[in-house]
Amino acid sequence: MSDLLRIAIVGFGEIARRQHVPAIAKTSGAALVAVADPAQTPPGLPHFRDLQELLRDGPEIDAVALCTPPQIRHAQAAAALAAGKHVLLEKPPGATVAELSPLIAAAHQAGRTLFATWHSRYAPAVGPARKLLAGRTINKVTIIWKEDVRVWHPGQAWIFEAGGFGVFDPGINALSILTEILPRPLLVRSAMLDFPSNREAPIAAELELTDESGLPIRAEFDFRQTGPQTWDILCETDAGPVTLSKGGRQLRDGSMLVVDAADEEYPALYRRFVALTSDGKSDVDLVPLQLVADSFMLGRRRLVEAFED
Amino acid sequence: MSDLLRIAIVGFGEIARRQHVPAIAKTSGAALVAVADPAQTPPGLPHFRDLQELLRDGPEIDAVALCTPPQIRHAQAAAALAAGKHVLLEKPPGATVAELSPLIAAAHQAGRTLFATWHSRYAPAVGPARKLLAGRTINKVTIIWKEDVRVWHPGQAWIFEAGGFGVFDPGINALSILTEILPRPLLVRSAMLDFPSNREAPIAAELELTDESGLPIRAEFDFRQTGPQTWDILCETDAGPVTLSKGGRQLRDGSMLVVDAADEEYPALYRRFVALTSDGKSDVDLVPLQLVADSFMLGRRRLVEAFED
Repeated sequence: MSDLLRIAIVGFGEIARRQHVPAIAKTSGAALVAVADPAQTPPGLPHFRDLQELLRDGPEIDAVALCTPPQIRHAQAAAALAAGKHVLLEKPPGATVAELSPLIAAAHQAGRTLFATWHSRYAPAVGPARKLLAGRTINKVTIIWKEDVRVWHPGQAWIFEAGGFGVFDPGINALSILTEILPRPLLVRSAMLDFPSNREAPIAAELELTDESGLPIRAEFDFRQTGPQTWDILCETDAGPVTLSKGGRQLRDGSMLVVDAADEEYPALYRRFVALTSDGKSDVDLVPLQLVADSFMLGRRRLVEAFED
Repeated sequence: MSDLLRIAIVGFGEIARRQHVPAIAKTSGAALVAVADPAQTPPGLPHFRDLQELLRDGPEIDAVALCTPPQIRHAQAAAALAAGKHVLLEKPPGATVAELSPLIAAAHQAGRTLFATWHSRYAPAVGPARKLLAGRTINKVTIIWKEDVRVWHPGQAWIFEAGGFGVFDPGINALSILTEILPRPLLVRSAMLDFPSNREAPIAAELELTDESGLPIRAEFDFRQTGPQTWDILCETDAGPVTLSKGGRQLRDGSMLVVDAADEEYPALYRRFVALTSDGKSDVDLVPLQLVADSFMLGRRRLVEAFED
């Protein structure tokens, strides 16, 4: 293995092109050396149809970043670990929770890094929000996470297929932040899931969560937002409201703007990946995915209007 | 704490009356000393309306056996552990997976036993099946778990409510046996869930599972069975079929009947509970519940005929 972490991206869709490519370019100690994707052919990089072809015919690599849909990620992660590669998993880390256990064991056995990423946790106001809330008593939390699926997931049919998570694909970002900034483990009390009559994954969801102290937490996820998009977490505390907005880029303490920074999630995430691989460590937190699985298991289902892309 | 484990049953429904009461009576070192239930008043035992009243006004107890519906079990388990009681959880151990983490931590901190029971694992042919399969290569597994909900869950409306599991209430018994007798961790590949048009939990389900070796596992759960009931797990092996039937009471190696024993699940389960409490240990295996949560998250949904009890 060279000093440089030679990375191949597998699955060259929206998120790979928009986030992973520029982030790797900014990361010292990392280089993008190949891409595997059945359709997309990026300019200027060795390209392979799939992971198998990449591993067989491609240049030497140390790691793969799996940006494929969650339904097929487990088999790819297992194959990459078996080939001795470090593995970065885009969020959500899989289509199920249980599939991660053998991967964690395989990474451990191979001495390789398995990194289940939650990019929203690297948003610039998330760390400051956690520190601010640590000194407060939180009385109530409200999450509003509403975006336009046509804008953010154009043509991504898999997102509304079984195992594609639907509105939980963005919603899990909120849950990944929430579990990072609150002091106690969370559990789902109830959920209402709105399934379009022609789709297999929910387009909207309302969750009630809590923790052992009984903290009331309400979350509204909606993929049908048009106009302004909303990615807000409002914490009502004993010293006034603490508001994390713009998906974790802005933090307000009362009316005072404490953090307002640009999106640098993916560069921070790749710095962490490089550090994990040089320490030979894994980082797999399954709690956000667990809360989604629990919401599906516990949730009531409502059929809503068909959704046409 | 006396040498005798003084147990109170909370939730005096079908399973408590039919299984827990006679099993405790057979268990040396254990005694049933009280019951809490809002409606049922068993003869000859101190009776309380709920756990709070039992803890406040009841006789001294060392442990509670929670036989209430899964949706309300978490709060009861937390209260019982906070009062210093050992806790036995009927299956499934909760309405969600994540709710168990704080309970495990609380039990550990209080030095009390938390026992998430899977009664089917104590069926007499399950241990012999595991041993027999350990010496074989398994090529394929088929689970048929079909029973008549009107016979086994008369008037239990909660089972078709959100969080009531529907057909996964018996199906999780099959999964608890499966995860006990197979050598590798399992994952769900796909699921089809049949929801009656007037209910919030599935009445039938078809699952495809596998393990890291690619073993094909197919499970059919159905609550609409009439006539003979079927609780079978068929393993096709390199040395012929191994069949576990009658919910784990019969084992056949090829056509040879190896085990055919009476149902003694609950007495074995209570012996284990007594042993756990005297060692101050917990036993919480969440994998069967995890596989159910994963099935709901990954599964396709199909609306089927309304179900009237």
